Amino acid sequence: MSKQISPRYNRVAIIGLGLIGGSLGYAIKRANLADHIVGYASSAGTRTRALERGFIDEAADDAANAVKDADLIILCTPVGALSSLAEKIQPFLKTGATVTDVGSVKSAVVRDVGPHIPAGVHFIPGHPVAGTEESGPDAGFAELFDGRWTILTPVEGSDETAITRLELFWEACGAKVAIMDAAQHDLTLAITSHVPHLIAYTMVGVAADLEKDTQADVTKFAAGGFRDLTRIAASDPTMWRDIFLNNKEATIEMLGRFIEELMALQRAIRWDDGQTLFDRFTRTRAIRRQIIAAGQDSPIPNFGRNPQHLTPTDKDQK
Amino acid sequence: MSKQISPRYNRVAIIGLGLIGGSLGYAIKRANLADHIVGYASSAGTRTRALERGFIDEAADDAANAVKDADLIILCTPVGALSSLAEKIQPFLKTGATVTDVGSVKSAVVRDVGPHIPAGVHFIPGHPVAGTEESGPDAGFAELFDGRWTILTPVEGSDETAITRLELFWEACGAKVAIMDAAQHDLTLAITSHVPHLIAYTMVGVAADLEKDTQADVTKFAAGGFRDLTRIAASDPTMWRDIFLNNKEATIEMLGRFIEELMALQRAIRWDDGQTLFDRFTRTRAIRRQIIAAGQDSPIPNFGRNPQHLTPTDKDQK
Repeated sequence: MSKQISPRYNRVAIIGLGLIGGSLGYAIKRANLADHIVGYASSAGTRTRALERGFIDEAADDAANAVKDADLIILCTPVGALSSLAEKIQPFLKTGATVTDVGSVKSAVVRDVGPHIPAGVHFIPGHPVAGTEESGPDAGFAELFDGRWTILTPVEGSDETAITRLELFWEACGAKVAIMDAAQHDLTLAITSHVPHLIAYTMVGVAADLEKDTQADVTKFAAGGFRDLTRIAASDPTMWRDIFLNNKEATIEMLGRFIEELMALQRAIRWDDGQTLFDRFTRTRAIRRQIIAAGQDSPIPNFGRNPQHLTPTDKDQK
Repeated sequence: MSKQISPRYNRVAIIGLGLIGGSLGYAIKRANLADHIVGYASSAGTRTRALERGFIDEAADDAANAVKDADLIILCTPVGALSSLAEKIQPFLKTGATVTDVGSVKSAVVRDVGPHIPAGVHFIPGHPVAGTEESGPDAGFAELFDGRWTILTPVEGSDETAITRLELFWEACGAKVAIMDAAQHDLTLAITSHVPHLIAYTMVGVAADLEKDTQADVTKFAAGGFRDLTRIAASDPTMWRDIFLNNKEATIEMLGRFIEELMALQRAIRWDDGQTLFDRFTRTRAIRRQIIAAGQDSPIPNFGRNPQHLTPTDKDQK
């Protein structure tokens, strides 16, 4: 059945022209998935830059004009802006159109956007699990979604054909597509992404509070661990503020477990309990092996930062 | 003055033939810094593998035989093994020889190894701030130290000529060398490396405790944040157990600050305090910029994992 459905849309509207919006524009053009891409961002500078980079064909001067006549509307703003955005575009949505988003939380999006979707318009929340720590209209590139998961969380009563079409669209953008419910999505992402980001922000914040001399040393000798956390903690502050405010329950639940576990390890350090430390540090290796087996990371040491440093053994692993 | 001092040693003994010991063997050979390298590891299999890979010239069957006649002895075992190792080799150290180590903590090494160093032998603790998450005799490569810092923490009354010689040796291995006292080293590394590793082990431990279905999803959809933590948490458990047990004070102090900060952020999430979240997430970006300015990381997005994905803008940054 799905072979009869085309992944193409005549007119695509991208609202929000940052890393994800820009990458989508490029990916759509790469696979020829639309006749026309209209883009909107609240900043005029961003709209101009998006036109210059060429990942949209036309810039609209407000969101309503962008969605008018569009067959697929992709909301790529921070999650906190979705509710008022949905309210604004509601009267201009064409019957039969599909509205989706790319937000990192899904229950809150269903809650905030759902009520503004008119009958006859398909609402299919989505989340491409892909990104870099860069943001803004210069950050996007066509290959961002290649081989990465996009999770769709259709609401009850969604149109099957519309879902399949969006699924094919994302696959044509390079992604693998998974379907799950919004709550399951939010719990999974709290662990894989949200709490790790909060931890990274926290640790880098500790360094920011150090006295000046020590901070200079920290910057100078930043080794693997901290350096990698600073990269995670350089992600867009607005986006992350909205993620935490909108995935509160799952984040606080997982944060609670994290703190309990951290207390257990701190206690082991304080009381010289080497066996507990060794046991905990050993079992985490199994998770790493599962992730490599799932194709979510490469086993090349040090993030492949020094490809010229590969020894014959390392090459064998490639 | 330093130009008169040669970085070469006739006979170098490497005790411990894992990632660091192996990389040192290769780096010494690359720069022709020794006439002869003798290696020792407690496992016979490791010794055989080291000879096969060729980063040592000779394998000794015990540590005493390895250090006999050596001009430079580099202790590359986990920190917890150093005290008994130093006691064992003490009677066999040649007058005028230099003993150094590569441990990630320095005050404890001064405490444990110092008393076993005879008069007439130079003891200069050291720490190459370099590594990957790999361990064992197959993990090393010659370029591991290139452009990375090695920190030397000489004890009071150390011989200046011996220090300069070791400094030149490390530079010839590709490293930049810094001198500081052991306590300052341990505090700096607690922030840049030890606490980040503990955090990574903790977060991955939380995932390891999840019910099976959720864990399968976590592995499948592991995105940037968590995936990078699992890499850090795949590091050698014995080495890390020893680091925490031997840098207890600085680790617990920094962990305390980390937990306070994390509680503040959790509270902000619970009470919908978006402004606090935004402010904290913004100031951490400054630290990231300092680290890139200090040449400790590249600004290429996503750890350069997808070099084929570079857009023209990204190339400009190279």
